[in-house]
Amino acid sequence: MAMLLIGFGFLMVFVRKYGRSALTATFLLVSTALPIYLYAKGIGFFGQVNEEVERLILAEFGAASLLIAAGAVLGRLKMPQYILLGLLFVPFYMFNEWVVLGGGLGLVHAGTVIDTGGSIIIHAFGAIFGLGVALTMTTHQEFEKTIESDATSDRYSMLGSMMLWIFWPSFCAALVTPEQMPHTVVNVIIALCGSTIATYLFSVSLRKKVSIADIANAALAGGVAIGSTCAVASHTVALIIGILAGGLSTFGFAVIQSRQQKWMKLIDTCGVTNLHGLPGLMGGLAALPIIHGLNMQSQLSGIGLTIVIAFIAGLITGKILPIMEEGQKHTKMPKNFLTLNNKKIIISFKKSRFFSYKRNEISYFCIKQ
Amino acid sequence: MAMLLIGFGFLMVFVRKYGRSALTATFLLVSTALPIYLYAKGIGFFGQVNEEVERLILAEFGAASLLIAAGAVLGRLKMPQYILLGLLFVPFYMFNEWVVLGGGLGLVHAGTVIDTGGSIIIHAFGAIFGLGVALTMTTHQEFEKTIESDATSDRYSMLGSMMLWIFWPSFCAALVTPEQMPHTVVNVIIALCGSTIATYLFSVSLRKKVSIADIANAALAGGVAIGSTCAVASHTVALIIGILAGGLSTFGFAVIQSRQQKWMKLIDTCGVTNLHGLPGLMGGLAALPIIHGLNMQSQLSGIGLTIVIAFIAGLITGKILPIMEEGQKHTKMPKNFLTLNNKKIIISFKKSRFFSYKRNEISYFCIKQ
Amino acid sequence: MAMLLIGFGFLMVFVRKYGRSALTATFLLVSTALPIYLYAKGIGFFGQVNEEVERLILAEFGAASLLIAAGAVLGRLKMPQYILLGLLFVPFYMFNEWVVLGGGLGLVHAGTVIDTGGSIIIHAFGAIFGLGVALTMTTHQEFEKTIESDATSDRYSMLGSMMLWIFWPSFCAALVTPEQMPHTVVNVIIALCGSTIATYLFSVSLRKKVSIADIANAALAGGVAIGSTCAVASHTVALIIGILAGGLSTFGFAVIQSRQQKWMKLIDTCGVTNLHGLPGLMGGLAALPIIHGLNMQSQLSGIGLTIVIAFIAGLITGKILPIMEEGQKHTKMPKNFLTLNNKKIIISFKKSRFFSYKRNEISYFCIKQ
Repeated sequence: MAMLLIGFGFLMVFVRKYGRSALTATFLLVSTALPIYLYAKGIGFFGQVNEEVERLILAEFGAASLLIAAGAVLGRLKMPQYILLGLLFVPFYMFNEWVVLGGGLGLVHAGTVIDTGGSIIIHAFGAIFGLGVALTMTTHQEFEKTIESDATSDRYSMLGSMMLWIFWPSFCAALVTPEQMPHTVVNVIIALCGSTIATYLFSVSLRKKVSIADIANAALAGGVAIGSTCAVASHTVALIIGILAGGLSTFGFAVIQSRQQKWMKLIDTCGVTNLHGLPGLMGGLAALPIIHGLNMQSQLSGIGLTIVIAFIAGLITGKILPIMEEGQKHTKMPKNFLTLNNKKIIISFKKSRFFSYKRNEISYFCIKQ
Repeated sequence: MAMLLIGFGFLMVFVRKYGRSALTATFLLVSTALPIYLYAKGIGFFGQVNEEVERLILAEFGAASLLIAAGAVLGRLKMPQYILLGLLFVPFYMFNEWVVLGGGLGLVHAGTVIDTGGSIIIHAFGAIFGLGVALTMTTHQEFEKTIESDATSDRYSMLGSMMLWIFWPSFCAALVTPEQMPHTVVNVIIALCGSTIATYLFSVSLRKKVSIADIANAALAGGVAIGSTCAVASHTVALIIGILAGGLSTFGFAVIQSRQQKWMKLIDTCGVTNLHGLPGLMGGLAALPIIHGLNMQSQLSGIGLTIVIAFIAGLITGKILPIMEEGQKHTKMPKNFLTLNNKKIIISFKKSRFFSYKRNEISYFCIKQ
Repeated sequence: MAMLLIGFGFLMVFVRKYGRSALTATFLLVSTALPIYLYAKGIGFFGQVNEEVERLILAEFGAASLLIAAGAVLGRLKMPQYILLGLLFVPFYMFNEWVVLGGGLGLVHAGTVIDTGGSIIIHAFGAIFGLGVALTMTTHQEFEKTIESDATSDRYSMLGSMMLWIFWPSFCAALVTPEQMPHTVVNVIIALCGSTIATYLFSVSLRKKVSIADIANAALAGGVAIGSTCAVASHTVALIIGILAGGLSTFGFAVIQSRQQKWMKLIDTCGVTNLHGLPGLMGGLAALPIIHGLNMQSQLSGIGLTIVIAFIAGLITGKILPIMEEGQKHTKMPKNFLTLNNKKIIISFKKSRFFSYKRNEISYFCIKQ
């Protein structure tokens, strides 16, 4: 649980002067996602989970994935849009979880995809969903300004990374059996150590200097990539996965990110592609050579389905989110939202000092205006 | 335990440039309260607790309540006065705990007041005690200056809130039976989600903008209010309690607080009335309709007694605290305090650069000079 | 685990504008030490530990000791030198652990030295090792500039202290039996409370003002000193040990530190002598009068051997570390290090903006130039 708020919240505050809004957004996203997931799973929506502790852990997994997705568009949504993002994300996430792990629609046999710590269904899903949203919503004027950071913000990001680093083992081990727990925890720690050292070496090698942003982000890639196989890999394999993931992620931040913006006309605020997307997919694929007796076809289908579902769901969400803003412009009521004090709130959004402040300070974050 | 120091300490640093002193004060308050409570309970002062773990958790509850009380006068006491505050608070707190929960004096039957997570005896008691102290100590010149905050401090406060948010479930579930734990934890999380969303909506509605101070504070009101009934309420009821508590608390911060200063001639530095006082009482009263077979008279007596004891205890403490300062002015020795190196310390307080620095920078915090 | 990174990382950022490098260094040190220790213990290097959880906890103890040692030279090493420091430290640490606790070389009977929470083998060893390194590496021009800190950095340090304060009980109780755990946890908390109050009183008494650095550091001395006897001391004895350790440590920071720099020609960046060295030795010696039936000779031998091994190991390491830098100057390859992309990295260090930035900003930290 600690992992959910602190770590992700911190990681997102690297945008200078944007810290408070990012923290508020994190609060709203988590507070939207958890009750919806808990309620939906309780009534058997996309598969039933009877034990309350397991339901809670799964809900926290979902909220983590939502925070990853939001990382791709962080700073470019208005506050109520984060709530809407949470409302739209959770059903898609549950659908994917049900299809890939629970045998939903009969596409993959239940239990044949190995993804203990969620490399595929949490990290890759969140990142690709976020990319889909970003792709639909990114506009031209956003390319003109660069996202700045300063020493204080970097230090905050590093703190967030350290928090995540520390809580990652418990996150991955949350649903393994008690006998597997020590092995899993040590595997995750070793993978994180591997990616941390690899990130340092690659960062110095690729950029000719230590980039604090690389360290704060790519150091965690080992935790992302070990997710699928954390309960079964040997320690040596965990170290190798960690090193490869750290290298891949650093390469992503140092080389791919700038080209991504040009080629795909896409801004990924927090670099979720490089931290969660690529290492997540790598982790899912790593299960193929590592696990004996694995159903290869299932694993590949699971990965492929996750990519497709996440991307389409992201595109749809990216189309829906701006409706709310349009609605506000024309003082039309957005449907199914804010039934409490509805009119008052919507009007207040338009006149609010909060958003006008944001418009001046970080106007390049605003969408389509 | 984590909840005690980090969360509260952070929440209190919202006063600009005052962060370091607030953190030191937190250290001193906790370090005074814990050993006294542990020792007193160990020898059977106001009821005996034999199991050491339970004694420790109860001591941490007491320290949390003390930090709440101190929040009302934060920034207006000198460092040794925080130690004295801790010395005076703990016996009063233990007395109230003994009367309300332990059947002390025969006023309420032991075990008939439902307050699992301490809405009444921790939060309401601490807040009302703090108000009593503040009422006695607030002077006229304090009204002239406003308490400022900046982006960095706000970000610190948000961090403190997130920490508290995350550790709140374990705090409430600390003394329930293992079977009740999952239900309790989910209830607390749902209540926190409810108050977070409600705080956002009410903050925008009442102030026409998002107030970061509202989010950092009122988002936690759900955790305060669910305390009494966290082990027995249904999830839906928990959500309703959370939403109501978030609304009530935000209303308190947005509307009541400024009037409180005028009407009651009272400054409540951290707004403990609105975060802990009102939601705490609400939580205690919420047990009446929720719990079947509840002894209504006991519950109401428990709440009433807590209000009376806390307020009188606060007023008494508010009268005693300034004696120490007076003592220093006339170089008289305060009694029963600082027996080690006594004279040297007292003299050093008068000449200290620390306090003269404070006098210049935040002179409006100083009392009666 | 949380203790490892967050707390120590934070404590080390007190050097102004140096925060990000200190956090990166912490990451690298921990990521180097943990896998090496785990691997070495797994193959039976200096004694075998079969249970994986115990091995992990012991590895974290080793990493904590390494962070203490690094604290003595923090800010005066280049990034790759921290990795080398980790590589050199771990075998020495394991050797000492094996000799003192495991009966290695037959010098001390296995199990006769009482050091449950590691006052001797973690804290004193780390501090003395660090002093040895610092003694070899400290140069003349480093005396000319003072280490500065500002309010933000101090607040960070306080946070680090609070984190450590909170996680200290779980650290000390990590390897005791479940029955001893409550008593141990309460002992550690009481010792921390004692040292916190003592630090405040001594700081005011010795300096005529409250020093935030004293509070942030010496408040933890109780946790260091109670380590050896945390499972067996009575609560009253724990309080006394805490108070004495807090006083000793504050005396160290206020009085000894400046003289240490003159007499021993030695700069101890984080004051590890005063926080970990002296209280650690005090804690080890405190076992003599406290524990009945203790083998006095073994306990004293254990302490003496730790001092000797740590100091010699530190001196050796201090001689080896600069070789790497020399190597870079002459573009020679350092041996056994950075086999991946080796040449490229070394060259990049020389031209890197990172280090040139550091040279300007905190040139007094650089070694031999």
